[in-house]
Amino acid sequence: MAHVTVWNEYRHEQQSDEVAEVYPDGIHSTIADFLSDDHDVTTATLEEPEHGLPEAVIEETDVLLWWAHLAHDEVEDAIVERVHERVLEGMGLIVLHSGHYSKIFKRLLGTTCSLQWREDDGTERLWVVDPGHPIVDGIGEYIELPETEMYGEPFDIPEPDRLVFTSWFEGGEVFRSGCCYRRGSGKIFYFRPGHETIPIYENPEIQRVLENAVDWATPNEGAPRTFGNRE
Amino acid sequence: MAHVTVWNEYRHEQQSDEVAEVYPDGIHSTIADFLSDDHDVTTATLEEPEHGLPEAVIEETDVLLWWAHLAHDEVEDAIVERVHERVLEGMGLIVLHSGHYSKIFKRLLGTTCSLQWREDDGTERLWVVDPGHPIVDGIGEYIELPETEMYGEPFDIPEPDRLVFTSWFEGGEVFRSGCCYRRGSGKIFYFRPGHETIPIYENPEIQRVLENAVDWATPNEGAPRTFGNRE
Amino acid sequence: MAHVTVWNEYRHEQQSDEVAEVYPDGIHSTIADFLSDDHDVTTATLEEPEHGLPEAVIEETDVLLWWAHLAHDEVEDAIVERVHERVLEGMGLIVLHSGHYSKIFKRLLGTTCSLQWREDDGTERLWVVDPGHPIVDGIGEYIELPETEMYGEPFDIPEPDRLVFTSWFEGGEVFRSGCCYRRGSGKIFYFRPGHETIPIYENPEIQRVLENAVDWATPNEGAPRTFGNRE
Amino acid sequence: MAHVTVWNEYRHEQQSDEVAEVYPDGIHSTIADFLSDDHDVTTATLEEPEHGLPEAVIEETDVLLWWAHLAHDEVEDAIVERVHERVLEGMGLIVLHSGHYSKIFKRLLGTTCSLQWREDDGTERLWVVDPGHPIVDGIGEYIELPETEMYGEPFDIPEPDRLVFTSWFEGGEVFRSGCCYRRGSGKIFYFRPGHETIPIYENPEIQRVLENAVDWATPNEGAPRTFGNRE
Repeated sequence: MAHVTVWNEYRHEQQSDEVAEVYPDGIHSTIADFLSDDHDVTTATLEEPEHGLPEAVIEETDVLLWWAHLAHDEVEDAIVERVHERVLEGMGLIVLHSGHYSKIFKRLLGTTCSLQWREDDGTERLWVVDPGHPIVDGIGEYIELPETEMYGEPFDIPEPDRLVFTSWFEGGEVFRSGCCYRRGSGKIFYFRPGHETIPIYENPEIQRVLENAVDWATPNEGAPRTFGNRE
Repeated sequence: MAHVTVWNEYRHEQQSDEVAEVYPDGIHSTIADFLSDDHDVTTATLEEPEHGLPEAVIEETDVLLWWAHLAHDEVEDAIVERVHERVLEGMGLIVLHSGHYSKIFKRLLGTTCSLQWREDDGTERLWVVDPGHPIVDGIGEYIELPETEMYGEPFDIPEPDRLVFTSWFEGGEVFRSGCCYRRGSGKIFYFRPGHETIPIYENPEIQRVLENAVDWATPNEGAPRTFGNRE
Repeated sequence: MAHVTVWNEYRHEQQSDEVAEVYPDGIHSTIADFLSDDHDVTTATLEEPEHGLPEAVIEETDVLLWWAHLAHDEVEDAIVERVHERVLEGMGLIVLHSGHYSKIFKRLLGTTCSLQWREDDGTERLWVVDPGHPIVDGIGEYIELPETEMYGEPFDIPEPDRLVFTSWFEGGEVFRSGCCYRRGSGKIFYFRPGHETIPIYENPEIQRVLENAVDWATPNEGAPRTFGNRE
Repeated sequence: MAHVTVWNEYRHEQQSDEVAEVYPDGIHSTIADFLSDDHDVTTATLEEPEHGLPEAVIEETDVLLWWAHLAHDEVEDAIVERVHERVLEGMGLIVLHSGHYSKIFKRLLGTTCSLQWREDDGTERLWVVDPGHPIVDGIGEYIELPETEMYGEPFDIPEPDRLVFTSWFEGGEVFRSGCCYRRGSGKIFYFRPGHETIPIYENPEIQRVLENAVDWATPNEGAPRTFGNRE
C-alpha cells in the first residue's frame, strides 16, 4: 500500500468564502479522502513547520501530490531541494492545476512552465490522446467539465515523455492537460483540472485519474544509481 | 535548391465538379505552384505509369509530398517499398490530410493511423504547441480555418518525436494536427489540413507551413548507414 | 496471472547438434520453464499449424515472446497481421536477439531494423542506462556475459521511447540492447541477448530481466480506442 | 553568419603546466579558432566582469559553448539565470565534457547530471547511433580517441530527444556521449570529449562535430511565445 502525501498551499480556502464553501476542509482533505480507500494517505500544508514535509515524511512518501497557486515563492528552497532529491531517487510527483508554476515543477522540468489562461467558466473536454496509458484505465474517450478556468497553449514545458490528455476549451483553445515525465527514477504527472472555485476533485472521473496516477507513479525497485569515481 | 515531388491521387478532382472548381488542375498543381518559388518541383499522380514515381524520380527527390484519399489500395506495393526505402535513406516525406491512411504512412509508423472524423464545416484552429520549431517560422499563435472537416482523437500513431500543431474544432474535438517523426535518416511530417472541397492550399499560412516543412525535411549529409557482417 | 506465449522458430535446435546440446527441448522450453513460476505459459513454434498462433491463442495471450533467426520469411503474412493487430490492441511483445529481423518487429517499427554483427565469442556487458525502469528491478549496474555474438551500431530503429540497456562489446562496439516502445496500446521490448549456441537463457539475471519485461508488458485496461465517423 | 560565444572557466590552463602546454591560450581560444572560419566568434571567461557575459553579449549570442570543471560554484546565479532565459528564447547551448556539472546544464535538465568516471588514458570510440542527424554530417561510423578520461553510465539526465553518439571505452564502460535536447525554443547539445590534458579540440573530427552542432543549434524564427492572461 503506497504512502501518499497530499500537499496543499491551503490559502484560498482560508481567504475566500467562495472557495471555503467548495472545499471547507481544504483541497488536500478532499483529495486525501478519496485516495484513502486504497492508499495510506497523509496531508501537509504550507503553514506547517517545514511546510509539513520534514525529512522523515519525505523519506516515507511514495507519491506526493502538489496543489498551489498564491504562494509559490513562500516555499523554502531547502524543502524544494529535499523534494527534488527524493523525486530523482524515485518518489512519484503529481502536480495539480496551478502547481505548474511551483518551484518544484519548474526545477524538475527546467523551463518557465508558462501558459495562457482566462477565467471564463466555459466547458472543458479532456480528450484521451493515449488510450493505452494506465492513467486512463476506466476512463471514456473524454472527461467533460462543465465549468472551468481556461489554460491554453503554448505551455512552456519540455516535450512530454507521454501526452495522455489534451483539453478542448469552449472559448477556442487547446492545452496539453495530462503530461508524463520521468526525471531520475521518479515519475511525474501534471494534471490540469483543479480550479479552486469549482468542486472538480469531487468528480468521480477526476478521482479515478488521480488514483490511477498514484498507482502509476509509485516507485519500483530499479537498479543502483551509482555515481562518482570508478577506480 | 531541393528537388520536390508533389504526389496526388488526383481522383476527386476528376470525379466531382465541386472539387474541380476548387482545384481545377488538381491539388498537386496548386501545391507545386507555390512551392516553385524556392524549389525545383515536379508532380506525379496515381494514373501515371509507376504512379509517376519510377526509380529515377524517387532517386532525385529530396522531399515528397503525398495527398490521397479514395484509392490508397490502388497504390502498388512495389512503389510503396521504393518510397519506404528512400525515406529510410534520407528523403523527406510530407503526408497531407487523408494521406494518414496511405500505405506508406502506415508502413513507416507501424500503427493503424486511424482517427475519428466528421464532415461538418465548422471552424478549426491549429494551435502552435511548439513555437520554437522551424516548421512554424513566421506563423502566429494559431492558424484559423473557417470551414473544415473534423479529425478527432484518438489518432492511432506512435507518440510524435515533436508535436508542432494541435487543432481545436468548433464541434468539441481536438487533434494532433502537425506531427514530426524520423525513420532511418528520413524526416516525416504529417499535416492535417487539406480537405478537397475547400481551397485550403490557397491559404498563405498553410503555404508557409508547407514551405517550412519542405526545408525542414530536406536531407542532410549524415554519417554512413553501414549494416551487416563486421569481420 | 498473465497468459504468456513463448514463440520460437525452433530450427537451430533441430538442425545443429551444438545448439541441441544447449537447448535440448528448444529455446522456447527453457524460457517457458523459468517464466512458469509466476505466469501461465504456453509455447508455439513455426512448424505447428498457423505457427501455433491460431486466433484463440492470440486472443488469450497477454504477452508474446518471439525468438527467430533462420526462417523469418516463412512466417505467414496473415499470422503477422494477426499478431500486429493484437499488439495495437494491447498485447505485450518481447522480441529476442535475432528476432530484430522478424516481420512483426519490422512491421511495428517501420524501419529495416538492420545492424552490424560478428561471431567472435567476446565478452558483452549490458549496462543499465535507465536505472529507474521496472525492467531492471533487482539488476546490478550491468549484466556481464562472458561469451556472445556481437551486435553493433548503427541499429536502424526509431529512437526508443526508453532506452534501458546499452551493451559494451570487448571487440570495440556498442549496441542499444534493451529498447522499449509503445505502438497502439501494446508495449514492446527488444532485448538483445540470446545467441543459440550459448545458454544465455539459463542466466539468472537474463531470466530476471525477462520476468520483469513480461510484467511491464502485460496489458492494462486503458480507455476506448474508438475510430471512424463521429456523427 | 551566426554569433558564437565560447565560454571557458579558464582555470586549468593557468594552474597546470601540463594543461598550459596543451592549450597555451586556453581551451576557449582553440575552439574559437576553428569555429572562426564560418562564424563570428568571441570568447568569455570566468574571471571577466559578469564572467564575460553581460546582457549585451548574451543578447547578441546565437550559440554559446560552455567548458568548465573546477569552479562551477563560482558562476553567479544571476548570470546562470540570464543564460537560462536566453536559451528558452532560442539561443543554442553546447555543453562540453565536464560542463555536465555546470549550474546551467543542471538547471535546464532538472536532474543531477551525475555519472561515473575514471582517469585511465584508455581508448574511446564515439559510435554514431543516429547516422541521419545533421550533427554527424561528414563523420564516419565512429570517432576514435586514443587516450581519454572515461565517463560511464548511469548518466543522470532526462532521456535525450535524440541520442547521437554513444561511447565505448577500452576499460569496459559505455556512455551516452552526444545528446540533443530542446528547452523552450533553445537547442542544447551535450558532447562528452574534452579532457583538459589531451588536445582533443585539435582533432578534425571533433572540430567537425562542433561546427555541425553550432549550425544545428543556431536559432530559427519560430512562432510567438506569448504567455499570460488571455482576455
